[in-house]
Amino acid sequence: MSAGWFRRHFLSGGPLPEPRPPGPRSSPVPYHRPRFLRGSSPGATDASRRPDARPVRSPARGRTLPWNAGYAEIINAEKSEFNEDQAACGKLCIRRCEFGIEEDQEWLTVCPEEFLTGHYWALFDGHGGPAAAILAANTLHSCLRRQLEAVVEGMMATRPPMNLSGRCVCSSDPQFVEEKGIRAEDLVIGALESAFQECDDVIGRELEASGQVGGCTALVAVSLQGKLYVANAGDSRAILVRRDEVRLLSSEFTPETERQRIQQLAFIYPELLAGEFTRLEFPRRLKGDDLGQKVLFRDHHMSGWSYKQVEKSDLKYPLIHGQGRQARLLGTLAVSRGLGDHQLTVLDTNIQLKPFLLSIPQVTVLDMDQLVPKEDDVVVMATDGLWDVLSNEQVARLVRSFLSGNRGDPHRFSELAKVLIHNTQGKDDGATGEGQVSYDDISVFVIPLHSHGQGGSGH
Amino acid sequence: MSAGWFRRHFLSGGPLPEPRPPGPRSSPVPYHRPRFLRGSSPGATDASRRPDARPVRSPARGRTLPWNAGYAEIINAEKSEFNEDQAACGKLCIRRCEFGIEEDQEWLTVCPEEFLTGHYWALFDGHGGPAAAILAANTLHSCLRRQLEAVVEGMMATRPPMNLSGRCVCSSDPQFVEEKGIRAEDLVIGALESAFQECDDVIGRELEASGQVGGCTALVAVSLQGKLYVANAGDSRAILVRRDEVRLLSSEFTPETERQRIQQLAFIYPELLAGEFTRLEFPRRLKGDDLGQKVLFRDHHMSGWSYKQVEKSDLKYPLIHGQGRQARLLGTLAVSRGLGDHQLTVLDTNIQLKPFLLSIPQVTVLDMDQLVPKEDDVVVMATDGLWDVLSNEQVARLVRSFLSGNRGDPHRFSELAKVLIHNTQGKDDGATGEGQVSYDDISVFVIPLHSHGQGGSGH
Repeated sequence: MSAGWFRRHFLSGGPLPEPRPPGPRSSPVPYHRPRFLRGSSPGATDASRRPDARPVRSPARGRTLPWNAGYAEIINAEKSEFNEDQAACGKLCIRRCEFGIEEDQEWLTVCPEEFLTGHYWALFDGHGGPAAAILAANTLHSCLRRQLEAVVEGMMATRPPMNLSGRCVCSSDPQFVEEKGIRAEDLVIGALESAFQECDDVIGRELEASGQVGGCTALVAVSLQGKLYVANAGDSRAILVRRDEVRLLSSEFTPETERQRIQQLAFIYPELLAGEFTRLEFPRRLKGDDLGQKVLFRDHHMSGWSYKQVEKSDLKYPLIHGQGRQARLLGTLAVSRGLGDHQLTVLDTNIQLKPFLLSIPQVTVLDMDQLVPKEDDVVVMATDGLWDVLSNEQVARLVRSFLSGNRGDPHRFSELAKVLIHNTQGKDDGATGEGQVSYDDISVFVIPLHSHGQGGSGH
Repeated sequence: MSAGWFRRHFLSGGPLPEPRPPGPRSSPVPYHRPRFLRGSSPGATDASRRPDARPVRSPARGRTLPWNAGYAEIINAEKSEFNEDQAACGKLCIRRCEFGIEEDQEWLTVCPEEFLTGHYWALFDGHGGPAAAILAANTLHSCLRRQLEAVVEGMMATRPPMNLSGRCVCSSDPQFVEEKGIRAEDLVIGALESAFQECDDVIGRELEASGQVGGCTALVAVSLQGKLYVANAGDSRAILVRRDEVRLLSSEFTPETERQRIQQLAFIYPELLAGEFTRLEFPRRLKGDDLGQKVLFRDHHMSGWSYKQVEKSDLKYPLIHGQGRQARLLGTLAVSRGLGDHQLTVLDTNIQLKPFLLSIPQVTVLDMDQLVPKEDDVVVMATDGLWDVLSNEQVARLVRSFLSGNRGDPHRFSELAKVLIHNTQGKDDGATGEGQVSYDDISVFVIPLHSHGQGGSGH
């Protein structure tokens, strides 16, 4: 747990509960199956799916990813095993299942070998302790594999069939699927959405069973069938960097970006605020002197601003308060999506945060066939600490200048990830411009998109 | 009322309730004040705010806009006074008000003259009778004027003050307003949002009092302080057409585009479906044969698709059903935002549609100073019938070719609106490509953006 993080993410003013040390790492048995990830040597697959992307984390602590033991390309960057930042990556092996003939029959595994393979990268930025981030790093890939296996048959068709067993109940089924524009990638998006939700349930049960607390954001990239899926729940970010393009692959979910959703929930269920908070947004917290004045405000249905006459109830602490990085949900949390936080309450109250949080990610799809990646095209995934200090353009400049100057280095992608982190710590200069420094834990993946088999520049 | 419209917008299968003829047109007194609109001759203001835009409507019927009697530029296009399509446009005269010193004092009008002027164009596409569209055409501008007058003081500042009376309660107020990025245009957006909501309340009361029924979509453009605001609730559309740019100024709100919002509401309040509908989306309506099968589906939290085993409750009629233009909310309505429909129920049931409908528009802002409009730059606003038949690009081609060939014609913008409508009726050929024809009522505004004072091409 980082004290700095806690300072910035929780209400100051009262004594913070002493974080409990996480219990022994438990692999939730039904969700962590060894067949999901297997040790693989880098370069064994094509580059758009290859596993030689490097996660590099702020070199304050050191830890190994337990289920990646055979995975030579992970760099631990000296982080503690119990750091609030956790990462995971590896090969995704999806088996083919077939629906039994009997309606109540269990799914039958007809193909014990790998049927479809992909790659998986994930960053989890914990808060309130590392427990949720550790559970997510150990669990989410298994949830995703199971969700993908449940629909893999549909994913193999040009158009997913209306009916998974292949039995055509209605002769116009393909036409309906086409009219709805349903593609194989929609099944992967659906699987990612379900996997995040399932993982959140697992984390909730595990935290309760072990008496632990905490939550985490989750940013996941999955390379599958020639597409890169980026799923984000929280304030981490992924960008695509090419020679003349920087493209956002995720957007952040914070109390500020999800204001209307959160205010609307409080409008529908006012009891969630227990009479302690006001749903309305004001430019600053109101004071007694404001009573009766007409001040700027926004409610759940408004994108614009208006004026209202201040009533006594408007003087309560706002549901969402603060600006930019300082914005907090119920004075407590800086993110509005993620995993965990099932027990999180506002300090010294029973007001729960979980009802306002979503575990569902937003998913962006990058079609590698359309993209035709060049040698130095990469995806940079990083937790919020990097983006607090470096803009997308600054990161892109660092990426381009570093990669073009280090063509011969087989470890240049992990070196680049280190360079990016060093730039947030004042260890490199020039790029940060304003010389800002981050004290947050930072984790970075740099994922090269180019396949060397496609005629790269030959090293 | 158009029978064709009814055929396409309501469930078939049962007898339709006989539409009641609308009662005598009543101007709801508190909302319709003569000072809002005054007759003005075209060209009296600069072009970016000038009133010589033309609404042209399908020449099936004829009506005049009663409150626009002095407004020479309206073209009635032979529509019936009771057509389901209604339009309104005119000068928007906003007076300055000042907040009294006593907190409970009424607002004092200190400046009886016009303080700020703008222009207003609005299209209302009714359903279930013309009553709501007529009320909206007679009311919305008054609601908007009142909402703008309530905040006009704030609109005149570079940054709206935290406190409307100008009394600074907290010395850091301007800093908070700046941190939140609140601009004068946010007050106009807020006023548009509030005006739509207020107008919806008025329509609800008026319909109930007069025993009438119906609803309408609303698309509004307001030119104010060098900006064009486009507010949309429904499936009409506005686009900006320039020599080498076509820009969407609105997006459509239909059961399909708002699926997740609508499904989520049914998830929160399942009683709204009265056990008669299923919240889930399937590619087609399920049949008894599907029971026990794994079929494609989506729930409220999903952007992607997945498979689920069909249960008996999945065989109910879907909350949202059909594809594209055929998609219906509760089998009844083709739009998910608009005004009115307070009494609308699913045929032969008590299931209300209003809880699923929003009256709040989405507002887009076009900064005329940044745009620097050229002579043939126009905004085209039209009800859905036009866009069913012509793509944005097809409309843009018609606009460019017509305007460049008719430079000398002082009525070329209204002629252009007619040409656009004729193109949807098979009266012109070439542009529609596939020769599609619309049988819907269609209304079109063509709003020229260029100021002739800025050195136009001299006619």
